[in-house]
Amino acid sequence: MLNAAITGIGDTPVGRVPGSTATSLNADAALAALRDAGLRPSDIDGFLCAYSITHPHLMMASVLSELLGLKPNFCAAVQAGGASAGILVMQAAALVEAGICRHVLIATGDNRLTGMGRDQAVATLANVGHPVYERPFGISVPAAYALVAQRYMHDHGTTLEDLAHVAVAHRRHAARNPLAQMRESITVEDVMASRTISSPLRLLDCCLISDGGAAIVVSARDAARDLRQPPVAVLGAGQHHTHEHIVASRSLTKFGCTQSAAQAFGQAGLKPSDIDVAGVYDSFTITLVVQLESIGFFEKGETGPAAAAGDLDLGGRLPCNTHGGLLSYAHSGASGGMFHIIEVIRQLRGQAGDRQVTDAETGFVHTDGGILSAHCSLVLGAT
Amino acid sequence: MLNAAITGIGDTPVGRVPGSTATSLNADAALAALRDAGLRPSDIDGFLCAYSITHPHLMMASVLSELLGLKPNFCAAVQAGGASAGILVMQAAALVEAGICRHVLIATGDNRLTGMGRDQAVATLANVGHPVYERPFGISVPAAYALVAQRYMHDHGTTLEDLAHVAVAHRRHAARNPLAQMRESITVEDVMASRTISSPLRLLDCCLISDGGAAIVVSARDAARDLRQPPVAVLGAGQHHTHEHIVASRSLTKFGCTQSAAQAFGQAGLKPSDIDVAGVYDSFTITLVVQLESIGFFEKGETGPAAAAGDLDLGGRLPCNTHGGLLSYAHSGASGGMFHIIEVIRQLRGQAGDRQVTDAETGFVHTDGGILSAHCSLVLGAT
Repeated sequence: MLNAAITGIGDTPVGRVPGSTATSLNADAALAALRDAGLRPSDIDGFLCAYSITHPHLMMASVLSELLGLKPNFCAAVQAGGASAGILVMQAAALVEAGICRHVLIATGDNRLTGMGRDQAVATLANVGHPVYERPFGISVPAAYALVAQRYMHDHGTTLEDLAHVAVAHRRHAARNPLAQMRESITVEDVMASRTISSPLRLLDCCLISDGGAAIVVSARDAARDLRQPPVAVLGAGQHHTHEHIVASRSLTKFGCTQSAAQAFGQAGLKPSDIDVAGVYDSFTITLVVQLESIGFFEKGETGPAAAAGDLDLGGRLPCNTHGGLLSYAHSGASGGMFHIIEVIRQLRGQAGDRQVTDAETGFVHTDGGILSAHCSLVLGAT
Repeated sequence: MLNAAITGIGDTPVGRVPGSTATSLNADAALAALRDAGLRPSDIDGFLCAYSITHPHLMMASVLSELLGLKPNFCAAVQAGGASAGILVMQAAALVEAGICRHVLIATGDNRLTGMGRDQAVATLANVGHPVYERPFGISVPAAYALVAQRYMHDHGTTLEDLAHVAVAHRRHAARNPLAQMRESITVEDVMASRTISSPLRLLDCCLISDGGAAIVVSARDAARDLRQPPVAVLGAGQHHTHEHIVASRSLTKFGCTQSAAQAFGQAGLKPSDIDVAGVYDSFTITLVVQLESIGFFEKGETGPAAAAGDLDLGGRLPCNTHGGLLSYAHSGASGGMFHIIEVIRQLRGQAGDRQVTDAETGFVHTDGGILSAHCSLVLGAT
């Protein structure tokens, strides 16, 4: 068990946030996390941020640290694509464990909806792989996940309807969340009828593009005790890094989440069936299906029918992405995974309101990045 | 004293490296560091890299990790501009201290000389500050350091000739280093006559632009014992983060190096006069002057005359940047600071050949980033 606990969470409005910048979203979320924890900027001795694609910046951590009035003993930006959120928590835990910091503030945020156009978005996605070697022959992110979907459906009998049920389940969660970007009810038929982005993935199989920011505070256990909120313990954490580009892999459907989750569960002394609430990266419906089945929450091919039966809902076998996930709540770079972490913490604190999972004591979060290459899993526990 | 030791170092040719890419320079340096340490890729359980400005990449750490055949427990890119090298070592030390990793490989590299044109370089430098708020009124990096120089010269009597002596001392070091990018002897008159970049800084007051890569391995002390090279201990480490943009500072000449160095020395139980060999960030001659005097190696206004008297040379009071520094050896992003670390390690191992400092047992490295905003100091010791 690590020495770290999460003591503060903060987020901004998501979706279309007019006038926002990457800087303002990071800062607003950070200040909200400080307020939540009951900490002042002068209490913070570690600061980490992620990255922005609307405003890439060599000194992002310093700029934000200055803006927030911090004087950290450790300050840097950490970049691991969509896996950044979990990795940032592991890094903060390591800083606490090493005695370098007592309270580490982690901020993320980007204005991807209002801050960039379609061309910049496509160019950025095309740059996730190995453009030096592979452009123009490499594949873009949605196409890579489409290949994964084709193969996974072939191997495990997952159907288009199964994927649609996953999207619908997420929208049901979002309907209970007044802050979610997309709350309008959808049906399996709506998903099936939405336009193809990269076959077999349709528009409603894909995550949103959002403005938004999210921040948390990671503290040493003994420094966490007297703060405003009940601390949430980081019981276990694991990473696994496999192939960056789908073409380099021996298998299209073996993700590193299997290993990263096994490591996190092993450290926590828990197993998937012990988990009360989960936040699992859902960049596409297929991403969630493969990961839930590879981590051991469901058998191969089982997730679609389970989603249809309400197993991912409140009161279901594994309430998952109860905020609405990347599919219906919001996705804004590293904040996307951070939203999963924050939602699980709200659940473990009993602060999830209309979408509270009864007696939630154990939580699991998984974030992944790149084209399936970087995986980070966390097991969290109420204290 | 931290639990970490540096067990491997590796670098590539520097200067103009035709055909190189950021990826190849990172990878070549990483493989050299593994060979130096006597470790195989399968021994490495942590991987950190920095960033590239010729080929910015959201998943740089994953790409490099895959290319090198690693399966790390922790893998991320860390970005703090020119301060990255020191901060990467502190992060690796924290991962070792927290028990997450035993051997952390850190790779850096960029092909800034052959990989980008003048326009891209200028655009990148203009983006170091707060372009969202300040462009077109903000100042570029050389202009910011020129302002620092103006004020520092006014306050402390440092002269143009003093700065020139610093440049000349670095070139004397580079002349002993067959790998340095600029080895041709220069005089104070040459520096004085070189064209103005931003008054009072002249061409020869400015660091080089280079292709190059550099890597090191940071290991847990107990895992360091049986490797190929004598481990170098990380005796102390400190960071301080102040203002990103010079205009936001209360003083143009109070750098965070004072605090970061005090922290590192305090942890090591040493003081500046105990140091046998130093590597101090020299992005401009004025950068080195201010830092050496702010850290306590020299009195205010003393560095120029000291450089003229040979105090920075082999056998002098503080042999400093014995490889030639950013001014005459090479500067290639995060590798710039990494070259300082590698040179100090070579000295502490007694492997510096013609430029060996006799009986070097204690070393100091300082890297800074942005426009004077991010500072990281390390105190290193032979074992």
